[in-house]
Amino acid sequence: MAFTNGFTKHTKQECLDIAIVGGGLVGSLAALHMAKKGHKVSLYEYREDIRTAELVIGRSINLALSVRGRKALKEVGLEDKLLEHGIAMYARMIHNTDGTRNAIPYDRRNHQAIYSVGRKYLNEVLLTAAEKYPNINLNFNKKMVGGKVDKGEVTFIDTTNEEKKNIFADLIIGCDGAFSSVRREMLKRNGFNYSQTYIEHGYLELCIPPAADGGFQMPENYLHIWPRGKFMMIALPNQDRTWTVTLFMPFENFDSIKSSEELLKFFEIYFPDAIPLIGKERLVKDFFKIPAQHLIAVKCRPYHISSKCVLIGDAGHAVVPFYGQGMNAGFEDCSILTELFNKYGSDLEKILTEFSETRWIDAHAVCDLAMYNYIEMRDLVNKKSFLMRKALDDFLHWIAPSYWVPLYSSVSFTCMPYKKCIENREWQDRVLNKIFTVCSFIGVSSCLLGAIHLYNTYNTMEELSFN
Amino acid sequence: MAFTNGFTKHTKQECLDIAIVGGGLVGSLAALHMAKKGHKVSLYEYREDIRTAELVIGRSINLALSVRGRKALKEVGLEDKLLEHGIAMYARMIHNTDGTRNAIPYDRRNHQAIYSVGRKYLNEVLLTAAEKYPNINLNFNKKMVGGKVDKGEVTFIDTTNEEKKNIFADLIIGCDGAFSSVRREMLKRNGFNYSQTYIEHGYLELCIPPAADGGFQMPENYLHIWPRGKFMMIALPNQDRTWTVTLFMPFENFDSIKSSEELLKFFEIYFPDAIPLIGKERLVKDFFKIPAQHLIAVKCRPYHISSKCVLIGDAGHAVVPFYGQGMNAGFEDCSILTELFNKYGSDLEKILTEFSETRWIDAHAVCDLAMYNYIEMRDLVNKKSFLMRKALDDFLHWIAPSYWVPLYSSVSFTCMPYKKCIENREWQDRVLNKIFTVCSFIGVSSCLLGAIHLYNTYNTMEELSFN
Repeated sequence: MAFTNGFTKHTKQECLDIAIVGGGLVGSLAALHMAKKGHKVSLYEYREDIRTAELVIGRSINLALSVRGRKALKEVGLEDKLLEHGIAMYARMIHNTDGTRNAIPYDRRNHQAIYSVGRKYLNEVLLTAAEKYPNINLNFNKKMVGGKVDKGEVTFIDTTNEEKKNIFADLIIGCDGAFSSVRREMLKRNGFNYSQTYIEHGYLELCIPPAADGGFQMPENYLHIWPRGKFMMIALPNQDRTWTVTLFMPFENFDSIKSSEELLKFFEIYFPDAIPLIGKERLVKDFFKIPAQHLIAVKCRPYHISSKCVLIGDAGHAVVPFYGQGMNAGFEDCSILTELFNKYGSDLEKILTEFSETRWIDAHAVCDLAMYNYIEMRDLVNKKSFLMRKALDDFLHWIAPSYWVPLYSSVSFTCMPYKKCIENREWQDRVLNKIFTVCSFIGVSSCLLGAIHLYNTYNTMEELSFN
Repeated sequence: MAFTNGFTKHTKQECLDIAIVGGGLVGSLAALHMAKKGHKVSLYEYREDIRTAELVIGRSINLALSVRGRKALKEVGLEDKLLEHGIAMYARMIHNTDGTRNAIPYDRRNHQAIYSVGRKYLNEVLLTAAEKYPNINLNFNKKMVGGKVDKGEVTFIDTTNEEKKNIFADLIIGCDGAFSSVRREMLKRNGFNYSQTYIEHGYLELCIPPAADGGFQMPENYLHIWPRGKFMMIALPNQDRTWTVTLFMPFENFDSIKSSEELLKFFEIYFPDAIPLIGKERLVKDFFKIPAQHLIAVKCRPYHISSKCVLIGDAGHAVVPFYGQGMNAGFEDCSILTELFNKYGSDLEKILTEFSETRWIDAHAVCDLAMYNYIEMRDLVNKKSFLMRKALDDFLHWIAPSYWVPLYSSVSFTCMPYKKCIENREWQDRVLNKIFTVCSFIGVSSCLLGAIHLYNTYNTMEELSFN
C-alpha cells in the first residue's frame, strides 16, 4: 500500500522517525495517523500480539464508541468497518427494583446512537490495518524499562529473551495507558504537573450469557443501567450475544459481601431481575473470582517534554469510565495531532507546544465530566427532576437543534471541545433559571391578582347583601 | 548512650527494624525519634556523609526554624543547641524602592522569633546525635533503585562500588525529599492518590557578603523582604555574617534578563539598595551561574502502604517555601509519629492508618497556606489594608491573647493543626466582617440622624425667622 504524504505548503517537511510506546487502541490508531502523514513509525507493545495471543487474560471488554472516536477512525478509513461490527445503543434502559424497565433515549430528535464495540476486535482491526503500511513496524513483547525520553531515547527489554535495547526517535508518543512508563520518566522532569486520583468506588465484571435460543437475553440496542443511588450496575451487549455487566460500588460495600448467601441477598434486594439473567452459580463464581478493581483519573500538564516526547490517551488523561469517553478522547488526540501536523508540517516544537497548551483544557474537562456522570448514572436518572430536565432539553433541542444542544449530545454526538460542552451546559442552566424565575414571578403575581380579585368580588357581594 | 524504651502500657510492644530512606533533616531527626522509642534504626542516605563531604554543591542554604520544628527537636534534646546557633528574626524588614525600610514584627505582643539556621549545620548536629545511639546505624552513598516497599523491601546501590543490595525492614520510613524514590514505588500501587504541581515562578540564590569590618551589612535580626508585587527578593542571615538572598520571580521574567546590562538595569529599578550590598560583580556572576530553579508542591493520600512503608517530610508533602514551614512540617511529622508509637506501641497497622487518615488534612492545608503566603509576602505586605489588618490583629491578640491568635502566629508560634489555623483565620474574618457591617450601619445611621437633626434645626430657624 502506497502511503500518502499529507504535508501542506509553507511548513517544515521532513519524514520523521516516530516511536509509539503502547500498541493498545490509542497506540495502534496513532500509528495509522502518523503513517498516513508519511512518517516512519515503530510501534512497541509490552504484551504479545493480541491477534495471535492464545491466552486472553480476563474477560473481553466492550467500549462505547461515539462521534469523536468515529471521526478519528474515519480519518484512517476504518469507521464503517467498526460500525458494522458494533451494536448501536440508542437509549439507556433503566432497570427498577420492582422488575419494571424504562428507556431514556440519548437523542430523541436524530436517533443517534453510541456503539458497543469489543476492545479486542477493535485492537485487532487497527493492528491489521497498521500492518498494511510499509512505513509501520510493529514490535511486540517489548517492555519499556527506562530511557531519556527528553532526548528521544527509550530502553526496552524483550520479554521473550530478556534482551535490552535502546532505541532513538525524533518523536516518542507515549500511548501506554493509565500506568504509563513513558509518563513515569516524564514525572522526574522539572515543570511536569501531574495528579492521579483514585475514586472510593471499585468495579467488578460479571457476564450475562446468551439465551437458550442463542439470542440476547435483553433488548440489545440499549445500554442497560441499574441505578441504585450510591452504586450501580450497567450492561453492554457483545457480538456473541453475551452482556458484559459491570458493578460499580464503594469498596466498603464490596468488602461487606463475604459469602455467596450475602451476595445473593444483596442481589435479591437491589438487582432481583439480574439474578436469573446471570444465573446464580455464575454470579457467585464471577463475583468472588477477583477482588473489585480500582478506578483512576489522571491529569497532566504539559503533555510533552522537549520536542521529543508527548503523551496521548490514558497516559496523559485517564478518566473514570462513566461518560464512555476514555477511548473517544484518546482517539480524538490522534485527530488533533494530525491537524497539528497538517498545520506545522514536521515542526515538532510547534506541534507539541500547541498540543500541550490547548489539549489539557478539554482533557481536564472530560475528566470532571466523567466524575459527574457517575452521579447522574447511578442516582439522577431515577429522579423526576432529571427526567423533566431531559424532556425540556429534548424539546428545546427539537425547536432549536443547532442552538440548544443538551450536554450528553454535545459530548457524545458532536466534536465540540469538552470544555465548551461544560460551558454550554452552564449557559443553559442560567437561561433556564432565569426563565424559571420569571415564570415564578408571573405565577405568584397572577395568584395575587386572582386573590385580590376574589377579595373584591367577595366584598362587593357582602356590600350587596347588606344593602 | 543507653536508649530509653518509651512504650506505654496495654499496647503491642516489640523492637522493630526500621529502615529510614534519606538522611537529610527529616530523615536524621526521624532516626533519633525512632531510636528514642527503642527501635533498631538503619538510615540510608544517597549522598556521602555531609559532615566529611569535601565538596559542598551549591551555596549553604538557611531555613527558618519555628515552634513546630523546635518542639520536635526538643523531644530529642536538641532544641537549645540549635537555638544557640540560630539567628533570631523578630520581624520582617521591608525594603522599599526608594531605599527606605520599615519593620513589621511577627509577634508584637510576646516578641517571639523565627530562627535562621544553616541546613548543613542542622543536618550535622542531627547526624552526630544519631551516631551516639547504639541502635542507629548510618549508611551513606546508598542510592535507592527500587524495591517492594509494601513488603518492607528496598533495593540500594552502593554508589562507591556499584554493589546492589536488598534490605528488609518491619517499617520503611521514606524521608527522601520532594523527589522521593520511596514515593515513586508507592505511585505504582493501587489507591495511592498523588499530585505534583510546579508553580510558574522560579528562584535563584544570591549572596550578600560580610561588611569590611566582618559584621553584617544589614540589621541581622530580621527577615529582609523586597516585595515587588509580581516578584520578590528575601534575605536570611547566616552565622558567617553573610546573607542568603533568594529572588523569586516568574520564569518569563528570568528569561527576559539576558545580559549583565539588563540585569543591572533590572536591579537598579527594583532592588537599587541591594546592588551595593551584593556587589555588581558578584551579582552578575551569581545570577548567570545556574538557571532559575523550579518550585514544587506535592500532595499524597494516603501516606502509607500496607503496614510496612510510610512517607514523611517533603516526600509526603513538599510545599513551596513561602511560609518557612517545609522543614517544620516535616519535623512535626516526627513528633506525630512518636505520639502514635506512644499510643499504639509497635502496632504499625494502627499507627500508619491513623497517621494517613489525619495528617493529610494538615499537610494539604500547609501546602495551600504556603501558596497563599507568596502573594502576601511579595505583594500584600506593601498594602495599607494588610498593615491595618495586622495592627487590628495585634491589638485583638493583645487584649485576648489566647482567644485571638493571628494566622502567622498560629502557624509559626503554636502547634495548632494547620487546618485549624486556616479555619481560625476564616472565623476571624467573619467576626471582623460582622463588626465592620455593624459599625458601617451605626455610622450611616448616625449620619442620617445628624442630617435629620440639622434639617429640623434649619426648619425651626426658618420658621422662627418667618414668624
